[in-house]
Amino acid sequence: MATSLVDYSRLCLHTITTKPWSLAQCIEGYTKAGVPGITIWRMHLDPQGAKESGKMLRDSGLTVVSLARGGFFPATTAAERRQAIDDNKRAIEEAAEIGAPLVVLVCGAVPGMPLAEARRQIADGIGSCIPDAEAAGVKLSIEPLHPMYADTRSAVNTLRQANDMLSEIGSPTVGVTVDVYHVWWDPELDREIQRAGERILSFHISDWRVPTRDMLNDRTLMGEGCINIREIRGWVESTGFEGFNEVEIFSHEWWATDQAQFVEKIKKAYLEYS
Amino acid sequence: MATSLVDYSRLCLHTITTKPWSLAQCIEGYTKAGVPGITIWRMHLDPQGAKESGKMLRDSGLTVVSLARGGFFPATTAAERRQAIDDNKRAIEEAAEIGAPLVVLVCGAVPGMPLAEARRQIADGIGSCIPDAEAAGVKLSIEPLHPMYADTRSAVNTLRQANDMLSEIGSPTVGVTVDVYHVWWDPELDREIQRAGERILSFHISDWRVPTRDMLNDRTLMGEGCINIREIRGWVESTGFEGFNEVEIFSHEWWATDQAQFVEKIKKAYLEYS
Repeated sequence: MATSLVDYSRLCLHTITTKPWSLAQCIEGYTKAGVPGITIWRMHLDPQGAKESGKMLRDSGLTVVSLARGGFFPATTAAERRQAIDDNKRAIEEAAEIGAPLVVLVCGAVPGMPLAEARRQIADGIGSCIPDAEAAGVKLSIEPLHPMYADTRSAVNTLRQANDMLSEIGSPTVGVTVDVYHVWWDPELDREIQRAGERILSFHISDWRVPTRDMLNDRTLMGEGCINIREIRGWVESTGFEGFNEVEIFSHEWWATDQAQFVEKIKKAYLEYS
Repeated sequence: MATSLVDYSRLCLHTITTKPWSLAQCIEGYTKAGVPGITIWRMHLDPQGAKESGKMLRDSGLTVVSLARGGFFPATTAAERRQAIDDNKRAIEEAAEIGAPLVVLVCGAVPGMPLAEARRQIADGIGSCIPDAEAAGVKLSIEPLHPMYADTRSAVNTLRQANDMLSEIGSPTVGVTVDVYHVWWDPELDREIQRAGERILSFHISDWRVPTRDMLNDRTLMGEGCINIREIRGWVESTGFEGFNEVEIFSHEWWATDQAQFVEKIKKAYLEYS
């Protein structure tokens, strides 16, 4: 079990956690709240572009932890697969422009495509992006997604599978992201975290609401659900991981509230339950 | 890949698939439709009791494939755990009374209880029921449930884990149920089905709707979703499995329709997509 967190030095928020806010509002809100880390969702780059966003972020003094998200490699036509790879290469460029050391990959899935085929296309797609990532000094991180997203979002659904894929790809430019929401149920989690070891590039936290009312947008504050967040953080830290604890909450309910107050609630939950 | 199904000789319906029907209506409806197998949910025994239900079923000539469901072993107090074991022993008695050769186990989970603890309680609970099951000539079948049910319904979430549990329990009275809805996403499914081998006691089919609008009651007809049902059936049959293909669809949408017409749609989907 990890020891309690006593300060906010490793707290990072994903901009989608405060989705109603623009990038400028996220920067202002996080800074005011004393949150030092920020993971940028591409939707928050779009209005002003990556270059201007990079300037805003450098001026802010916030640490840019990662860019979310690349991936979505599988497709039914060769043209679509090329488009996906091109889009990932753009994400790598954007990451470099905003100073993000890694792009998190939601690997993709296509309903009806055999999962084995989707998995081959994912490994191939990542492989195609490695030279660009190396040149840009940006890492790529495979985030295994919960099996309930195997239909449309990701054919990579366990950490074991992501680790196997890393072995297959065999590049130090590619690692994994451990998100407690996706992996908490896995009876092999402890072992596979140890196996991933220093290839763990980032760590995401939130909680699983009971009952969950929406499969996508009903995550909640740490401590309000049933995930053993602190235990998992302990496993991750036992590998030597010293990175940020990134709070990534998709929630219609929380998005409808005052976002500055929500950030304060996150801070409280972070110390008490993460 | 399994060969196409050409007749209904191995078709079984779960009574919950036609939930609006009473047991008498299920018996009449399945018989009229030429469906030879029936898996009984305990809610369909309750109104008339197991003894009278057994008589109705013997008179019908239908094959009773299994009783659903036992399980729900984990609990926070010793008294509740004993109650759960007693309830499973009653389910074993009921199975014997209706001529069901097995009780399917939805193993249970308690939000906030460490999954490792829940898993220990499940193995212990099953172990406590084995003597009764042996005496009654009834098998117990662990059904791994989709990881999205790890909060409240089952801490057994992959076939690998169920196989490991079988090895731990080490009794020929306990086997596993493969339900495509729960396991289709698993990258190790083929291998773990081979590993389960003759310990596969039953096989459930339905389909994963895209998008799924309700985590519990939005399954659909074979062919309407994204599960590779025929491929999985092929893997299961390659182990020597010759049992029924049990259609288990929980669906608010389908339950709201005419159930006799629904059974005909199931028959059509069964031959075309299973």
